[in-house]
Amino acid sequence: MADLSTCPPLTRSSVQIAHKRIQSYIHLTPTSTCETINHIASTAQASRTDSQPAGDVSSCTANPKVKLFFKCENQQRIGAFKARGAFYALGRLIEEEGLEEVKKKGVVTHSSGNHAQALALAARTHGVPAHIVMPGISTPSKIAGTQAQGANVIFSGSTSDEREAVVAELIEKTGARLVPPYDHPDIMLGQGTQALELESQAEELIAQNPGLGVKGKRRLDAVIAPIGGGGMLSGICTALQGTGIKVFGAEPNFEGANDAEIGLKEGKRVEKVKTLTIADGLRTPVGVHPWGVITDKKQLEGIYSVSEEQIKAALKLAMERAKLFIEPSAAVPLAVMLYNEEFRKLVEKEAGEEGWNVGIILSGGNTTVEAIAKLFAAPAKVEERAEGKVGINGERTAENVAG
Amino acid sequence: MADLSTCPPLTRSSVQIAHKRIQSYIHLTPTSTCETINHIASTAQASRTDSQPAGDVSSCTANPKVKLFFKCENQQRIGAFKARGAFYALGRLIEEEGLEEVKKKGVVTHSSGNHAQALALAARTHGVPAHIVMPGISTPSKIAGTQAQGANVIFSGSTSDEREAVVAELIEKTGARLVPPYDHPDIMLGQGTQALELESQAEELIAQNPGLGVKGKRRLDAVIAPIGGGGMLSGICTALQGTGIKVFGAEPNFEGANDAEIGLKEGKRVEKVKTLTIADGLRTPVGVHPWGVITDKKQLEGIYSVSEEQIKAALKLAMERAKLFIEPSAAVPLAVMLYNEEFRKLVEKEAGEEGWNVGIILSGGNTTVEAIAKLFAAPAKVEERAEGKVGINGERTAENVAG
Repeated sequence: MADLSTCPPLTRSSVQIAHKRIQSYIHLTPTSTCETINHIASTAQASRTDSQPAGDVSSCTANPKVKLFFKCENQQRIGAFKARGAFYALGRLIEEEGLEEVKKKGVVTHSSGNHAQALALAARTHGVPAHIVMPGISTPSKIAGTQAQGANVIFSGSTSDEREAVVAELIEKTGARLVPPYDHPDIMLGQGTQALELESQAEELIAQNPGLGVKGKRRLDAVIAPIGGGGMLSGICTALQGTGIKVFGAEPNFEGANDAEIGLKEGKRVEKVKTLTIADGLRTPVGVHPWGVITDKKQLEGIYSVSEEQIKAALKLAMERAKLFIEPSAAVPLAVMLYNEEFRKLVEKEAGEEGWNVGIILSGGNTTVEAIAKLFAAPAKVEERAEGKVGINGERTAENVAG
Repeated sequence: MADLSTCPPLTRSSVQIAHKRIQSYIHLTPTSTCETINHIASTAQASRTDSQPAGDVSSCTANPKVKLFFKCENQQRIGAFKARGAFYALGRLIEEEGLEEVKKKGVVTHSSGNHAQALALAARTHGVPAHIVMPGISTPSKIAGTQAQGANVIFSGSTSDEREAVVAELIEKTGARLVPPYDHPDIMLGQGTQALELESQAEELIAQNPGLGVKGKRRLDAVIAPIGGGGMLSGICTALQGTGIKVFGAEPNFEGANDAEIGLKEGKRVEKVKTLTIADGLRTPVGVHPWGVITDKKQLEGIYSVSEEQIKAALKLAMERAKLFIEPSAAVPLAVMLYNEEFRKLVEKEAGEEGWNVGIILSGGNTTVEAIAKLFAAPAKVEERAEGKVGINGERTAENVAG
């Protein structure tokens, strides 16, 4: 990773520069809309006839008027927004050390998720060796996906200590530079670039067809993004500085996965999280650098969290109605919009009769039909769940793994 | 339905006129591409390391060079291309009889599928009453979807005779005009409009980024579309007359669902089909009017069929790699491209070193996460399958229902 002292400041213009630099390496992912989901989102939960997550919603009468704009980062290269940060961070490292030097040393990270594939892709693109430390119990498809990008996959135990020991050993041996998944300004600036695209794509869509937005408005009022380690959310806050577009974070609340929400309430970053939420990209605690941004009330309006059932219901709607194949983590912002009554009350109050145009970040689509089958087929037996052998989606469990 | 004697001729310019007339009612659905699937499609089956349907492919060495362009009709209104034909056919009926007359009489069809919702939507848009005859055993979500479009849903038994009796009774009572799902020139012209969009969208994509197409070519060489009743495939043949773009049909072969392929070989239309293929939109025999088009060798190059396992494998790739949520019927053309060795040999031979740009029609996305779960979870017990109680995807079985 480039040295912190050389990082550009966390400003909108730094994100704009980052965007120009990675543009030729990433996809300009589409922004799409869905009439049916707009209709559901603009109907009080108590009055909906469409499928709802379990629970009594008779007192849920908040009725915000919204039109949603889905930023389809599930269609990004490697299937998730992580390609942005990886390309930008590696580019900065090359800028700082020179390509030959970086080629000689290589890069390293530990991740079993989207960041692993993203860094492997960026490294391959520049001819840089990438070493990815993955827990030995990672799913074979993720291992294969990372190897398919030409990375050198090294297996470790699944605890933080075990993984970090392997990384340290690799750095010692090869001189490889560590590219962490979220806790670095370069990663934040890279991830923020999607907000610039969403902002202008929403404006274009409304200009072409004013009916896609709420009456009389020509741009976004708000954006909701998922928060795990916080690289993306803090990057989006940075990208939208001074635009008047409000930024909200969305988090699962299963087994304390809503560490950012709790941390903000208590005024103190939560440093450890152990959760098996189905939103497996959001199991990590917020990093130090992102925390510095999201605690700034001028930059982030707030964080709202949702249950596993609400995430599943939003995932089902995104697939069945908007026809977008996304991973559970990507359904969390939509779940907040549709089912978090506190958030819905706030939007109703602030947006009023006029309503809001709301950007929804669909952060990735790296799941499998088998995983979807487990989520929506009969649930795993209660005894197995209680013993911790399987997660709520019936998957083998591993300790939380960043990225 | 408008009287046959008043129908425009089955020519490209009739499709162009139809397109202008329905444009404001339908979505201009996107055309997208996927590097990974292009790579798999351009690798011999025998050499692939990616997931394959079961079976020995060691002799499958055909290795065509192709770049694919996916026409995303899963993102069409009501989630399938059927909206096109319904809007055009109803518009023609209104043109012929006058809006007031059509409003007085209403329209009727029998369908448990996408055509039911499409006609209901078109009718509601014009303030015309729609009566939809559905088998009583239709899935609740399909009934609810049709009712949500404001249609009058009438239940019938599930045999053809029972359904037609209910339709005849309704026509007798209300004077409603029948709008069949595929066997009428107006429907064919309406469905063909998607080919005009695909043709120009592929050209635009290649103009913006030549790497999306095969080297040195700036337009499509071929289009593969699914065939059930044949309304769409015959419409696409009509739309592409004189363009030099070759049109191919794709069909499931489970339990004789490949009636069009068989019919073409034997020179005689197969009039009855009874299959429980997972591609439930393609269970119907080809209609008389579409048959007239697809038997013209100047218009259709041929029809190729695939197994249930091949359809599932293509469906999995479309979702996991291209992130497109589609129904099994929509995966059939991709399955032909990826797994039909005879077709792949033909493309290898005709396209040569240069390769082909191939349009793939993704016809719809009307399935549910629960249906996907049944498809990719453990299969239903063999005894139940043998007794015909459940389909290959574990669903309750009904007689084939058009549309």
